[in-house]
Formats: sequence, C-alpha cells, structure tokens
Amino acid sequence: MSMNSFGHLFRVTTWGESHGTALGATVDGCPPGVAIDAGKIQHWLDKRKPGQNKYTTQRREADEVKILSGTFEGVTTGTPVQLMIENTDQRSKDYGDIKDKFRPGHADITYFQKYGVRDYRGGGRSSARETAARVAAGGLAREAIKSIAPGIDIKGYMTRMGAHEIDRSRFDWDQIDANPFWTPDAQAADEWASYLDGLRKSGSSVGAVIEVVARGVPAGLGAPIYAKLDTDLAAAMMSINAVKGVEIGEGMSAAMLTGELNADEISMGRDGPQYSSNHAGGILGGISTGQDIVVRFAVKPTSSILTTRKTITKSGEDTEIITKGRHDPCVGIRAVPVGEAMMACVLLDHLLLHRGQVGQNQGHIG
Amino acid sequence: MSMNSFGHLFRVTTWGESHGTALGATVDGCPPGVAIDAGKIQHWLDKRKPGQNKYTTQRREADEVKILSGTFEGVTTGTPVQLMIENTDQRSKDYGDIKDKFRPGHADITYFQKYGVRDYRGGGRSSARETAARVAAGGLAREAIKSIAPGIDIKGYMTRMGAHEIDRSRFDWDQIDANPFWTPDAQAADEWASYLDGLRKSGSSVGAVIEVVARGVPAGLGAPIYAKLDTDLAAAMMSINAVKGVEIGEGMSAAMLTGELNADEISMGRDGPQYSSNHAGGILGGISTGQDIVVRFAVKPTSSILTTRKTITKSGEDTEIITKGRHDPCVGIRAVPVGEAMMACVLLDHLLLHRGQVGQNQGHIG
Amino acid sequence: MSMNSFGHLFRVTTWGESHGTALGATVDGCPPGVAIDAGKIQHWLDKRKPGQNKYTTQRREADEVKILSGTFEGVTTGTPVQLMIENTDQRSKDYGDIKDKFRPGHADITYFQKYGVRDYRGGGRSSARETAARVAAGGLAREAIKSIAPGIDIKGYMTRMGAHEIDRSRFDWDQIDANPFWTPDAQAADEWASYLDGLRKSGSSVGAVIEVVARGVPAGLGAPIYAKLDTDLAAAMMSINAVKGVEIGEGMSAAMLTGELNADEISMGRDGPQYSSNHAGGILGGISTGQDIVVRFAVKPTSSILTTRKTITKSGEDTEIITKGRHDPCVGIRAVPVGEAMMACVLLDHLLLHRGQVGQNQGHIG
Amino acid sequence: MSMNSFGHLFRVTTWGESHGTALGATVDGCPPGVAIDAGKIQHWLDKRKPGQNKYTTQRREADEVKILSGTFEGVTTGTPVQLMIENTDQRSKDYGDIKDKFRPGHADITYFQKYGVRDYRGGGRSSARETAARVAAGGLAREAIKSIAPGIDIKGYMTRMGAHEIDRSRFDWDQIDANPFWTPDAQAADEWASYLDGLRKSGSSVGAVIEVVARGVPAGLGAPIYAKLDTDLAAAMMSINAVKGVEIGEGMSAAMLTGELNADEISMGRDGPQYSSNHAGGILGGISTGQDIVVRFAVKPTSSILTTRKTITKSGEDTEIITKGRHDPCVGIRAVPVGEAMMACVLLDHLLLHRGQVGQNQGHIG
Repeated sequence: MSMNSFGHLFRVTTWGESHGTALGATVDGCPPGVAIDAGKIQHWLDKRKPGQNKYTTQRREADEVKILSGTFEGVTTGTPVQLMIENTDQRSKDYGDIKDKFRPGHADITYFQKYGVRDYRGGGRSSARETAARVAAGGLAREAIKSIAPGIDIKGYMTRMGAHEIDRSRFDWDQIDANPFWTPDAQAADEWASYLDGLRKSGSSVGAVIEVVARGVPAGLGAPIYAKLDTDLAAAMMSINAVKGVEIGEGMSAAMLTGELNADEISMGRDGPQYSSNHAGGILGGISTGQDIVVRFAVKPTSSILTTRKTITKSGEDTEIITKGRHDPCVGIRAVPVGEAMMACVLLDHLLLHRGQVGQNQGHIG
Repeated sequence: MSMNSFGHLFRVTTWGESHGTALGATVDGCPPGVAIDAGKIQHWLDKRKPGQNKYTTQRREADEVKILSGTFEGVTTGTPVQLMIENTDQRSKDYGDIKDKFRPGHADITYFQKYGVRDYRGGGRSSARETAARVAAGGLAREAIKSIAPGIDIKGYMTRMGAHEIDRSRFDWDQIDANPFWTPDAQAADEWASYLDGLRKSGSSVGAVIEVVARGVPAGLGAPIYAKLDTDLAAAMMSINAVKGVEIGEGMSAAMLTGELNADEISMGRDGPQYSSNHAGGILGGISTGQDIVVRFAVKPTSSILTTRKTITKSGEDTEIITKGRHDPCVGIRAVPVGEAMMACVLLDHLLLHRGQVGQNQGHIG
Repeated sequence: MSMNSFGHLFRVTTWGESHGTALGATVDGCPPGVAIDAGKIQHWLDKRKPGQNKYTTQRREADEVKILSGTFEGVTTGTPVQLMIENTDQRSKDYGDIKDKFRPGHADITYFQKYGVRDYRGGGRSSARETAARVAAGGLAREAIKSIAPGIDIKGYMTRMGAHEIDRSRFDWDQIDANPFWTPDAQAADEWASYLDGLRKSGSSVGAVIEVVARGVPAGLGAPIYAKLDTDLAAAMMSINAVKGVEIGEGMSAAMLTGELNADEISMGRDGPQYSSNHAGGILGGISTGQDIVVRFAVKPTSSILTTRKTITKSGEDTEIITKGRHDPCVGIRAVPVGEAMMACVLLDHLLLHRGQVGQNQGHIG
Repeated sequence: MSMNSFGHLFRVTTWGESHGTALGATVDGCPPGVAIDAGKIQHWLDKRKPGQNKYTTQRREADEVKILSGTFEGVTTGTPVQLMIENTDQRSKDYGDIKDKFRPGHADITYFQKYGVRDYRGGGRSSARETAARVAAGGLAREAIKSIAPGIDIKGYMTRMGAHEIDRSRFDWDQIDANPFWTPDAQAADEWASYLDGLRKSGSSVGAVIEVVARGVPAGLGAPIYAKLDTDLAAAMMSINAVKGVEIGEGMSAAMLTGELNADEISMGRDGPQYSSNHAGGILGGISTGQDIVVRFAVKPTSSILTTRKTITKSGEDTEIITKGRHDPCVGIRAVPVGEAMMACVLLDHLLLHRGQVGQNQGHIG
C-alpha cells in the first residue's frame, strides 16, 4: 500500500523532489520482452520539457532519463524498471525568500501541517516536476502496449484556455503537434498565443482543459466495481498537480440531458457492435465498449503570480507574498503529455489485469 | 487487490447482485470500540430506500440490514463487520423480455463482453442496487468518525436537475431534509417536482448534479501523491453507477479562472490559518486545509426509458427495445445518500491512514 | 489493504467469529464460467467438520455453506462470491467461566491488549473456527483450477504426531483417505489411534506436522521477489491458527546439507526438464519448476487442556485455569483440509497472476 | 500490487540486478522527522558487504549507498526515500561460460521459463545481491523505530552451520559481533572456522540456521488474520534468497510437544503480564505478547560449487557444469544482516499499522 504508487499489475511508484538529487519512477509489472531504450522514453519527456518556448517555464532542465534496471540486451526482463532523471538545475537560491511564507494556492501549508517539515525548495515533493516521472513511465507503457495490444493510439490536446474554448467544427488531429498548445484547432492556437503572451507579461496565469482520447481499445477492459476503467482514469487524472475536475465522455454535462439524448444506441457492424454516438466516452459500467475512450480534466491556473497576495508565515504571522521565479502562465500546456502518460499507464494496467481476470475476452457477439 | 474493494485501512468490499439471494458489504479495518447496532445503519439505508415517493422507483425492497460479525456487546471489536441485506423482492419475471437484448446505456453488453455471462436479472452486479451496500458501510463509517474525530459533519444535496440549477443565494441547510430531492433551495424543489412529474409520466428521465460537503475536517488528511484526498474522492464518486464527472471545489470551472481569482488567500485566525475563499474545495496538494471539503458529481439520466431504442441481441441481430419496469426518472435523487456514504468512508479511511503515517498532525502554525 | 484478506488476484476475505451469527468468505477475482454449487464446496467442509470421530472436538456444527452471490445458472459470473456458514451451535454458556481469565497459549490476552475488547466466546475471531471459511474458499479455488489448469492435484496428510513420525518407506497415497488422521502410513495410523486415545482421556493434547503436495503444477508460477510462490505459501500456512513453522522441500534440514547433496541436477526428459531429486520442493527463486510443490507446517498442541495452568485475569490478578469444553486433542488432524485449501487458493492466485504478468509461459526449452 | 514490494504502510520496493547499472530500494511510508544520513545506512551495508574475510565471496563491491530523495536538512520528510547502490564491479566476463547453461539449484531455469529472457549475468534479478537493497531499507527502518518506539533492539546470529549447532548454554550476546559468523557461541565460532576453511578449499558449501530476536517490542502489534506478525515475518524471511524454512518460537519442534509443555503460563509482573517461558516466540494469535520476538530460518548451501553437476542448456541438451567464480561457501553468514533488516522493516510496518488501526494500545491489564 504505497501511497506514491498507482496501478494494479503495471505499478508505478514515483519518487523525488523538485530540487533534490534526482527523481524518477520505479516501474513494476512491465511485461517481459518489450523492446525499450532510453531514447524511446526521452521522446515523451522532451514533449513535456520546460523552457521550450515562451509559454512554459524558463527553468532549464535537461530531463535526461536513465534506465538503471529491468532491461537486458534491449528488452525488458519482467523485473522492476528504474527510470531516473537527475536534477541538474538546482538553483535553490531562487526560492530562499519564501522559506518562511506559505504560497497561496500551493501545497506548502498543507505539507507542513501534515508532515511538520517545510521543504521550501520549489514545492519539494508537491512540485509539478514530479510529473516528469509519470511521463517517463508512460513512455515505457506505450511501448509495452504496442507489444501486447498493437493498434491502440493515445492522444491528448487542449480544448480550453481560460474563457476560450476550441470550436469542435475545426477539430483537426494533424494540428495537434503543429502548435505550442497541442490544440486541434489552429485558429484557437493563434488566438491563445496572443492572449497568453499578455498574461505572461503581466505576471498572471490561467487555467485550461485537456482532453485525452484512446482509440483502438478493445471492449472488455475495466474491473468493476472499484477498479472500473473510468474510476481508475478519474483517480489518475485527479492525482495530477492542479487538476480540479475530471470528466468521462459527456462529463458534467450528462446532468443536463434526458435519457433519450444520452444513451448511445447500438447496432451491429461488420466488426462487432457499433454505437450511434459516444456520450458514454467509451465506457459502460466501468468496462470499455470498444469506442474511443474520452477523458477530460481541468487544470487550475498556476498559483505563482506576480500580484501581491495575502498569506501567513510558518510562525503564524500575517504577511504578503509575490511569487517570482520561472513559472508557467498556463500549466495546462505541459499537462498534455502528462495526461497522455496516465492514460497509457492505466490502459496497460487494465490490459494486463483483464488477462489475469478472464484470460481473454469471454463473450462474443454475433 | 480485490477489485470490489475500496479504501486503504478502512476497507470496504461489496458483494451481491440485483436479484441474487443477498448483497452486502464486508468491512475491514473499522476501529474497535465503536458503538453500533443495525438501527444506526438502517437509518441511512432508509434514506436511500426506493419506493418512498413517486419520484423514485416503485420497486419495494425492505432493505433491512443485518450485522453478521465484528461486534460484541454493542461495540465493534476491530474484526471484519459483515453487513448483509437480503433481497426480498426478486420479481425476475419483470426482466424476462430483455433476456437476449442489451439495454442501451446499461452495462449489459460490456459485462457480457468481458465475462461471457449474461446475468439479465435487473443488471446483475452492475445494478445501482449495489449502492445499498455502500450506504450501509457509510453508516458504520459515520459512527466510527463520531468516535475518533467528533465534529465532522457530512451532508449531500442536489444542485442541478437537468437544465435546472439551484440559486445559491437561496441556499438553506435546513431545507435539505425537507424535500424529496435533498436540495437546499426550496423554490427549486417546487419547480423540480412538477418538472419531474412530467418526465415520469412520459417515461423519460433526466440527469443531476450532487454536491457533498464535509465540515469540521482537520487539516493534514490525504496521502500524496497517489492517495491524495481529492484523488480518492474522485475515484469514490466516479465508481458510483451513472456518474460521468467529478469536481473538487471550483471543479471544471477552475479552467476559466486566472491565478488572481483562483488562489485562496491565507490569514491567521484565532484557531489557525483561515482562507479568504474556498476555490480549492478544502484540498491543496491532495491534503485537507481545514476548510470545508467540497465534492460534486454528475449523474447521467437513467437509461431505462419508455421510448423505443435501437439495440442488438446476444447473437448480434439488430432489434429494438423499450425498457419497462420500475425505474427512477432521476437516479440522482437516490445518489445523494450514496455520495454521503462514500465521503464518510473516504474520510474515515484517511483519518486512520494519517495516524498510521505520522501519528498526529506534525506541523503547528502560530 | 484488508488485513483479513489474502491473495493477489484471487482474493479471499474471511469474516466472522466463533460464536457470532455467521462466518464466511468473500471471494473476489474468481474467474467467470466456473461450474459451482454449494454441494461441491460442502464436500471439503465436511472433511474439516468437527465431531466426526472421537479424535476431534465434539462441538457439533452443521457447517452448511450457502452461496449468496457471484453465480448465475450454475456458473461463476466473475463477480464476488459470498460463502456463508451460519453458526448453529452457539452454546456460549460453556465459555462463561473464562470470561475474565486469559487462557495460556490462546490469543485471548493479545486480542485484548490490541483491541481493548474481550470477546470471551470461544476465542471470538481468533478461534480455529475461522478456518472453515478458508476451506470453503479453497473448495471454490479447486473448481476454478480444474477449469483453467486441469491436471493439478492437491493432497495434504499428516507426517508426524508428537514424537511419532511416519515411515516414508510405507508411504501410500491410497491410505490417506482411509484413516482418521489423513496419514499415508497405515501402521502409523494404528499407533497414533491408541496414542491419541490416551491423550484425549487424560485431557492432554499434542502437536503435529502436515505436508501438502501439489502435483501437475506447470513451471513458471511465482512472482519474485516478494510474491514468490514459496513466500506466499509460507504466509498462507503460517496464518493458520497454531502453526509455528513452515518448510518448503528440504525445509529446515537444508541447513544441514552440503551443496553437493542439496542442488537437484537437471536433465532433459521427453516433456521438458526433469530433476534427479526434489530438495527444492518444486520451487527455485520463488518460481515453480514443474516438479511437485512440497510444503510442510507444524501445528502446536491445543492449548486447551485439563491440567491446571497459571494465568491472570483482565484486572491483572494472578489466578489459575482449567480449560474445559469440547476440544481437539490434536488440532493438526483438522488442519489437513485447511492446508489443502490454502494451497489451492495460492496456486489459483498464481495461475491468474502469471497470465496477467506474462500472458503465458514465455521461455520454451528444447 | 507491486510484486517487488513488501510491507503495508512502511513499503519497500527493491529494484536492480546483480550486474546492472545500479540497484536499490524505493522506500515509501517512512515517518517524517527521522534523522538520517547515508552513513547510518552504510553501517549496516558494511556488515553485509562481501569480501571482508575469507569466508565470504571475494567479489568486491563498494556497496556505497546514496540517498536520492525523501530527506531535507538531515531528516525524512514523509516522502519516498530512494536508496541507490551503484554496481562498480561488473566483471560480466566471469559469467560468460554459463551463458547457455542453467546452474542447478539456481533460479536460472525458472526465470527463463517464466519470463523468456536469460539474464546470465550472475543470476540477474535472482542474485542474492538484491539483499543489499533490503539491508539499506532496514537501516532506515532501524532509525525510524528509534524515533517512534525507542527501546526496541534487533539482533541476528547463526545457530547452526551444517551439522554443527551452537550450545545454548554458551550463549553470549557479546560474542555475536566478535567473530566472522555472528554467532553467540565462541567455541562454535572456532570450530566452524576450521570446518568452513576446509569446505572453501574443496569448493564445497554448506547450509545454516539464522535466528533473529527483537527485544523490547510492545504487546499488541500484528494484524490478524492475514497480516499477523508471524505471517508477515514468515513471508519476509522466506523471501530471502536460499531460505527453505521459517520458524517462530518453538518452530517445527512445537509438533513434538504436549499442551502441558508448550503453552506459556502467565503471571502478573510489575510492568504487566509476564510469562514462564517463551515457546510462542513472543506471538499469540498473530499479535505480539511483549516477550522477545524469536524467528529462525534455514538457508540452503550455496548452489555454486566446484563439483561437476549435470544440467541442460537453453536449447534442451544434456550437459555438465562447474560453477566457478567468487562465491560464499556459507551464504548463511551474510544472511544475518539481511534477516535483521527484514525484522526491522516488519516491526516498523506493524508499529505504524497498529497506530492506524487502533491509535494506541487499547486494552490495559491491571
């Protein structure tokens, strides 16, 4: 019952702090025989890496991953894979002035109240830097999925920045990798660029919504009642820093529909059951239907802003704070590869779990 | 790694099907010395019981709970508490005509695809009837909380039915128990009554949003990174039948805010830190702040409606279905006590876990 | 993390006390499609049932098992199977005189020290009566094994009663079911009968060694490093009441051997690798070799004896006690079906786990 | 459900192979505020380190531990502690000649059969080198125990080498650290020295029995039924490489006793209950009594010997093998600090678990 672990059979334990020696992921339960090397994992870490453009934090981290164990002659052996990222940029002096103050919206105060220790170095364990370890584990999960269930494709993208939502009629899969916001709406990307530039200059920040879709997932994944596929996805996404809401398919809007509008009708297609729509987000009763799995989550605005805010010190005195430093005006951008990584980990976990539970799909229709 | 269990130290395993002999909850990890009897648990089951008014299913179940183990001379002993509810109304003939058809929006098809077994009796294990076991476990959790952390109060209520949301300016805690919808807005209750009556008569259904608030929760609960309080709450609520979205505090709307609007400012109060607002929903970095814990979840409309819908049979033939029977036009109503029960279970679990991790609150401010 | 559960994917939670309303096992993770009914489980419970001959306690319990959930039309559905045994013989007055005294060798004192509750009714949760639930779960596990890995045979038997060990040269599988001690040595059975008769009449008791063998287990089961097959078997057997030692293969005697005598040589047989001997007990590095799995455990003598013993009361006063009542002069006898049940549960669990980890045996030799 | 993890709340995951880049332990659940540095952990690693005298393998590993995370300003923060040991001596050429042969008594063959991968480099993950990670975690556990439950003392020692057992009448705690065999019997140490010298020269090996005792453990630790203190200790010890048997207190010999001889009588002492003897090994019903916790385990002789043995190749051909290299004639010697480490981890885990379950000792006697 490690509190820093997730997953049932593909089990990932992350470790490390923002400004410690290193951080990483201890990955247990990766199937043997998966072709892997550091480069394949580095690809995904580079997607998340800070300092790539003016919209993300200028903190420079090489974020170079090393595989310390679990592989031999280029394939996984079935034993734990240790993925380590050394911290090279540990400018702790940046954070010295907030040593005794709690930053509003950050976890400084609650970590202190829980553990009695004030690790003021950039948020310590509560820093979003922890998500680098998730992305590394997700990179490994992607390769394992390729190996045991080829045909699954996972893609994340931004659908909202602050008040600005994408126009679904302009949705274009090919646009996602073509702009710094990973959004499928090219016009939105242009508008967001100038909007965010303004926010960045004024030292403000804004929230975002990220959607992650998995295509090609077979029907039957998910372990009701308390390891449902949607339950595990909700937990996975909610565990990401700054996330305040999670939706599957229709999400919160499902509350506004009538039964006639919501339930997806079923008919028989050439390759099995097919659905008239996907309000369910590809999951019924916690089990995948074979449709696209659709998850959405909201990221709150970065709490580190240049406006003066009221707060208190460790000794309980009222004071004020301005959080300088190198921050993201919209952390949602870098949350895209993190959401993808969590989706990859959860799907691989359920692919393995399904085999353990029932061996193979049991019920054939038609 | 039971897939039908949730919780770390207070661990609840539910079992049973809609139309089987009995269903219940095996509750492990309840602290010893908690005064309990069946009556105290029955109180909460009665709140969820169907057939109480015209807005909920007319299926009549006594839903009488029996305590089979784990107590002696009126108190818990620290050993597993078995809570059993026998099924008395097993009119399986009601469901005979859907024996070979999958009901759209239900989990009939995915359970069959996963397990290869078609338990057509009212949804079998995927029936919302399973939530009776959660409510029973939640009743026990409430008494245990009273015993080890008195002062915590948990309350759920509806804030939206379909297109109709409550007006927060009319919020009145005392109204919640005074109307069949558990809503704090008396005027909304009146409007919803006639709206739902119409839906019921036409054989339609509608979704809802339920909010659950816990007051008096001490700061420091929650076990980052993957057993965060909000992560566990998200999983708990998403595991409830028909739930499609979960929010903490500001929820999905956090995406629309700027950093200035979102982060709750801190000042020093007489009893410790206090906050200018509660966008965070009482949780920072996965740990409770001492403010109200605020969770919201959306329930989709009941999929069983009287309109003809397209579907397929077990053998893969296209067909149509009308789901007759005794159903709830708005299952959100009965989801209120279920949400409360999940909140109670998660909080008790984290109260115990916190003791195991750090013994007591470690960091004192001021 | 239920403390009353064992197993990874086939997960058994037992509940209930010696003299409560009922006891049982909540079994999660049983594969779907296993043909099962109460009768098949009852068969194994009858083997463990007390009062069958003069060598076991005269307490009469029907020990009739009911299946409350998890099956439909004669097969398992993949959902939790609830196995309940009602307590029919609850003569709690037998135990009234020990209400305030702790029985030496029993867990009365430690349960009180841990939980602060004195459930004096026949040991409460610490009673060996809990093992009935294990035997029920084991019966289900046996049927599931038949279904997914036919050819595995599990058999337990006594090899020692007190100072008297069997003569391995007289080992006869067919004798095991032919005597009340489940021993493969017919001559030992005769000698033990008169020995135990004397012990019983004098109100004394004696310990025993039980060996459980599984034949036909495929190579490759076991999940190093901390869910090794031998590790899980050691935990399973040590968790049985009164067990004080567990051995795999050569066991404690392995300490007395040299490397030349201990390591089993390997050669190539028609159906794969074969071994010159089985000092390893069928397990190398925590993984099955394909040889017989051999586990042995020692059961201490029943602590309830008619000799006066020194003890203390709940309030800390020195006193004496004679434990009357209906007890087993050698609890080892009834531990045989319990050991078999644990072996069945562990093997099924590892069969499922292996599928989840690697899908199928990966490495083919020859 | 990580298969490379053990512990409930103090959860240790080990990773790494014999000849990989590094190995280590990811330790989750260590309480905050424990004063720790690499030196305190190194102390215990040095005790296990190979090449210290002629009785252990001449493989030279610095075995220098680094703390990569989880501490700040000299104390633990409550977040995961990563303990890494880099492999400096990776002379893989030593092992080249066994690339295609399975070594009898080793896990080469079963790892290949399970995972389909032949990591021939010194046993890979199945190497006893993994135990270095346990010793590191145990060092941290010892410091945490000091911090939250001072007064507990853990000590391991050898009681048997092959046919030669210690004489308990010569038992002297002070002798344990004074000889290379960690034995409390100085005369045995002398005799074993010449015996083992002969074995070493002839390229043979021998088994051993190690006893680990914990003094000062409070009554009440242990979580029945399936996380009993003895169950967890049995699993912990059986998971160590080469262990074939585990005993608690009287152990396998309990089978030979009558009830009169076995049950420890209780009387009231100045500080609480006291016992006439300790056949129970300090555990009743899976819960500590307050007496010394006594665990014993048997280690089989090293399988790597200089005598020619029959075996097969990966392709299934009969062949022979002599296992040269740098090996321990009696691996039992180096198992002593490993057994101590496992005891420390299990005790810390149960100290934390007990707090989580019941808060504090509940039942006071006298």
